[in-house]
Parts: sequence; C-alpha cells; structure tokens
Amino acid sequence: MEYKKKDQKHNVLVCLFELSNRHMDMLRAAFNVITWEQFDKDRVKVGKTIDAAIYNPASEEPLSSGFLLFLPNLKTFCFISRGVNPKEAQLLRERGIEWTSLPDVQSESCADLVFGLILAASRRIIEVISLTASVRAKDPEIFKSCHLFLGKEVSGSTLGIIGMGSIGYKVAERAKGFHMNVLYHNRHKRSDIDEAAVGAKYFYNLRDMLPLVDTLVIACPLTPETKGAIGTEEFKMMKSSAIIVNIARGSIINTDALVNALQSGYIRAAALDATDPEPLPGDHPLLDMPNVLITPHIGSATWETRDEMVRISIENVFVGIKHGSPSSVS
Amino acid sequence: MEYKKKDQKHNVLVCLFELSNRHMDMLRAAFNVITWEQFDKDRVKVGKTIDAAIYNPASEEPLSSGFLLFLPNLKTFCFISRGVNPKEAQLLRERGIEWTSLPDVQSESCADLVFGLILAASRRIIEVISLTASVRAKDPEIFKSCHLFLGKEVSGSTLGIIGMGSIGYKVAERAKGFHMNVLYHNRHKRSDIDEAAVGAKYFYNLRDMLPLVDTLVIACPLTPETKGAIGTEEFKMMKSSAIIVNIARGSIINTDALVNALQSGYIRAAALDATDPEPLPGDHPLLDMPNVLITPHIGSATWETRDEMVRISIENVFVGIKHGSPSSVS
Repeated sequence: MEYKKKDQKHNVLVCLFELSNRHMDMLRAAFNVITWEQFDKDRVKVGKTIDAAIYNPASEEPLSSGFLLFLPNLKTFCFISRGVNPKEAQLLRERGIEWTSLPDVQSESCADLVFGLILAASRRIIEVISLTASVRAKDPEIFKSCHLFLGKEVSGSTLGIIGMGSIGYKVAERAKGFHMNVLYHNRHKRSDIDEAAVGAKYFYNLRDMLPLVDTLVIACPLTPETKGAIGTEEFKMMKSSAIIVNIARGSIINTDALVNALQSGYIRAAALDATDPEPLPGDHPLLDMPNVLITPHIGSATWETRDEMVRISIENVFVGIKHGSPSSVS
Repeated sequence: MEYKKKDQKHNVLVCLFELSNRHMDMLRAAFNVITWEQFDKDRVKVGKTIDAAIYNPASEEPLSSGFLLFLPNLKTFCFISRGVNPKEAQLLRERGIEWTSLPDVQSESCADLVFGLILAASRRIIEVISLTASVRAKDPEIFKSCHLFLGKEVSGSTLGIIGMGSIGYKVAERAKGFHMNVLYHNRHKRSDIDEAAVGAKYFYNLRDMLPLVDTLVIACPLTPETKGAIGTEEFKMMKSSAIIVNIARGSIINTDALVNALQSGYIRAAALDATDPEPLPGDHPLLDMPNVLITPHIGSATWETRDEMVRISIENVFVGIKHGSPSSVS
C-alpha cells in the first residue's frame, strides 16, 4: 500500500465535495488533502503545489480553463462520479491532463433507491406518516382512517424505464421480483438475452410506451436529446394514476410541466432524487404537494457505496500520477 | 349476478370496518348494509333481521357469545381477513354458523410494503425528508449536507425472515432481485425446490440466524409461541447496524424491549406496520425516534387488493347463505 508512506504523500485538491469524516480520514491517510477553501484563499500559491484533484461534477464551480490555470502542475484529475460532461473531458484532454472517473459502482444503490421511491410513492408511505405525525397529538383517532389512504398496487403493475443502461437494467432485475411488466425505451435495443433475463420489452418510440405505464422511471444520462424530454405533451399521454420517478438528472423533466401535470391530474405523483434546479428554492410549489416526494440526491448515499467510491478515487489518483494510465477511464 | 336483484337483498351487518365509499357502494349494490352503528342502537330488534356479517378481526368489539346472542338468524360469518383467531372460529362452529375468511389475497401487497419499509429504513428516506422539510424554510443550505445521512446498502445484504408462509415467501422472491442473501426461520422447513427458487437458507433455531442478518422481517402469524418472540435477548444477538421490519402483528415484538434496543444501540432502526398497542398512545417514545418508521397497518391498503377483498367477501356471503358451503374456509 504505497500511499501509506507519509513522506511521499501527494497534495490532492478535494473539490467542493462534502464528505463524511470517515471518508475525509481515508483521503488524509493517503494524501495531503487540500480543501477547496484552502485552495480558494490563495489560488496562485496553493494551486502550484497540487498534483491531483478529486472533483464532484455537481460542484458549484464548473471545471473551466480559468480554474485549470491555477493548477499548473496537475497530473491527474479524478471525477468522483460515473458520468463526465464531454466538454469537461475535452478541456482536460487539451491540457494533457489525465482524467479518470468511477466505474459502475453506484448502480446497485441507485436501483435500490428507485424501488424505495416507487414503493413510497405508490403506497403513500410519506403521506400517511406525515398525516399521523401532524395530527396524532390532536386526534389519535386519525389512525383508524389512515388505512383509507389507499395506494396503488406495485406487484403486477407496468413499469416503464427510460434509459436501460446499468442502473435501468438493475431496476428491471428488481422489478422481476415484484412480478412487474417491464417496458423500456433506450437509444439502443438490448440483446434478446438481456431482455429475456428480466422480461423487458423494448419501445423505440417513447410515446408508444408512455400510455401503458403505471410507473415511469428516468434512469438515462442528461444529453442534449434527453434534456426536457418529459414535458407537458408526455405527461398528457400518461395514465392519470401514473407515478414518475427520477433518479437521473433533474432537467430531463421540464419542472414547470411537472408542476402543471400534478396540479391538473395528468399524473398522480412524483418521487424525485434529482430536481431542476437543485435544490429547489424554499418556496417552490413541488415542496408543498403531498403527492411529491423529494430526496436530496441520495442515489449513492450508503456507507458501502461511498466507501468504494473513495477507495477507487484514491487508487485512481495513484495510478494516474505514477503510471500516467488511469485504472478506469470512461 | 344474483346479488343484483334488489328484492332479494340480504341484510348484512358490516362490523366496525371502515371502508372507502367505493367499497361501501360495492357492498350496498349487493346487500342491505347494516352498519355497526345501526345495529348498536337497537341490538335486539335490528339483530334479528341480519342474515350475514362481514367482520374485521381488528375490530374493537371482539367476537363473543354475547354478541352472537343478538344475531339469532345469522347464517354466515365472513372474516374480512386471512387469519382467524381459533377461539372465534370455535365459537361460531359451536353455534352452527358457517364462517369464511379471505384467501391469500393480501400477500403481494404486504410483501411490497415490506420492501417499501426495508428501503425507507435502510436508506433513511423518512429522516432526510423530515430534515429537509423542517429546516428548508430557515436554511436551504441544509440540502448540501443531507447526502451525508448515509444509509445502509440493501443490495447484497443479508435478510432474515421469520415466518416463511405466503407473505414471507413473496418477500424472498423480491429479495432475489436485490441480490440479497436470504435466511429464514419457520416452524417447518420449506421444500428444497421452494428454497432453491428464491435462494433461501433454513434455520431451525432463530438464535442461530439473528446474529447474521442486516434486516429482520417478521411475517409469521401471532400464536402463543410467537407472542413476544423478539425481546431483549434477541435484540442483543443482532448486529448493531440491523433493522427490524414488522408486517405481522405488533405483539410478536416486545415493545418495551424494542424501545430499549433502539435507545441502547442494540439495533439501528425499526419499521413497523403493526405495533403493540395499536395505535400507540400519542406520547409513546417510539413516535419520537428519528430511526423509527411507523405506518398505520397498511399492508393491504391498495385499491386493487381492497377491491378484491370486498369482492370475495360478497361472494362468500352469497355462497354461505345459499349453499351452506363457503367458497373459502381457512
């Protein structure tokens, strides 16, 4: 474990990524960690000392030429995410800086969360809990009518998945255990073997799939084609009893159209781990709807997955610096 | 559809079961519905007119000899539940009243809810939602640290099921999609074929299984043997990171021992669709713990399942009255 030799520690900038103490300790055991705040106080002086950066693409400061000017000795740049913005990758390539991203380490925890969101929204778990919590002091009798908050059966219902990549496919695996009818829309059709293993049916046209689904899960990357892909027209094509779940990026859904769809009854409920903007302003209408469930981008938020993300990032920094050939490049 | 002839409608007592308007309408289309309140106003006079009863065993008024004395012309007694208390069944048998219960119609929705509870508790969904909801007005920045509420990975973790009947087995089916390691304790070992289909491993002794599980699901019937089966000794044997989920009856867990286990850190969290007592008094300590999630007995609370429960109850009344041989007797 080379990185345990204290006298050889590299200076690594950890950019705008709030980490648990355990994970900061893991990084500090391997590197001289330079926090964003330390760097920002004197970019010229501190920037020169930095060998590597670990960067969260959800950071507030986008990766720019200006930012890189302060890092003249940077050897490797590790995105602590799977997906990388093509513009950012291009920028690094132009400067001759090696970059790495995480392999497919978050898919299982994201697919798990999708089912947490599907079940919570379909079975109205958050609604009954808020109801009982808010009224119990005043009227304990409310308990008796809570079971009248009838939900929608998940078992045997029809699931539509937009984006049948790693996460989408793992969602389909889980759906099989719930005896769900799985439909999907993707740029490319999966192989017959892949489809048969999870019992999924391909739709080339999204609009042919939308009217059939009880739950629509968004698990595709954000691209110019998918940005705003779900808008008013799409909501109008869906069942009025349908639920939408977004585990991907907020802007794949047109937020105003979503508010309107929920208010107009085009769909029944939404469960969102990603919103546009993120976070939503405190007075946003989505925050006050009982049939909207918003989690704060916790797709990868388990100890096991975050441990692995940090562990691989450490490896990527070492491989990137020492050998110039990163262990995982997407 | 014989029960649609208005002049032949039977008088059916619907006992203490709060039903949605849609379901009351379904019953009224088939019967002259006598509500508990109507019966209770003049038990002697109204009781004589009643042919059949549809009864929720969770009713406040237990089925007793005294209660049956007011129903001298009762021909059939339909439990709107799967399980029936042996004492109550015996009481009806002694009076020569046919009784029916529902077949296995609630298992899928209960197994779905189990996963809703496992995922919500493991991924701390309720905790982050309450946190963002309560503080967002004051400090929208809290969003940024919510992803530090790290949960426990469900995928690949070890699930222990107490009670491998219909619901328990459907929980195991779903667990397979999450690549979970499934252990179970039951009165009887399931067949090798059943076990292989869901990849489950049998434990004759509950105490051999408890130290191994990340999530413990209770899905067994309440019997003299299972009452209080999970107490302080059992909690002490579990992992401190473990979660307990109860979809069965509240009193299978010793409530005081559960409070102590959560306060002492013997286990991490609890998700309960059933409690003892039910509902809990408004000042009960479990209601104020952030790592406790309580739903108000909503295992069967979907439109699809409740529709089916009411439909079968109507059939059971007709078959019971006309032919004296109920369509489903457990």
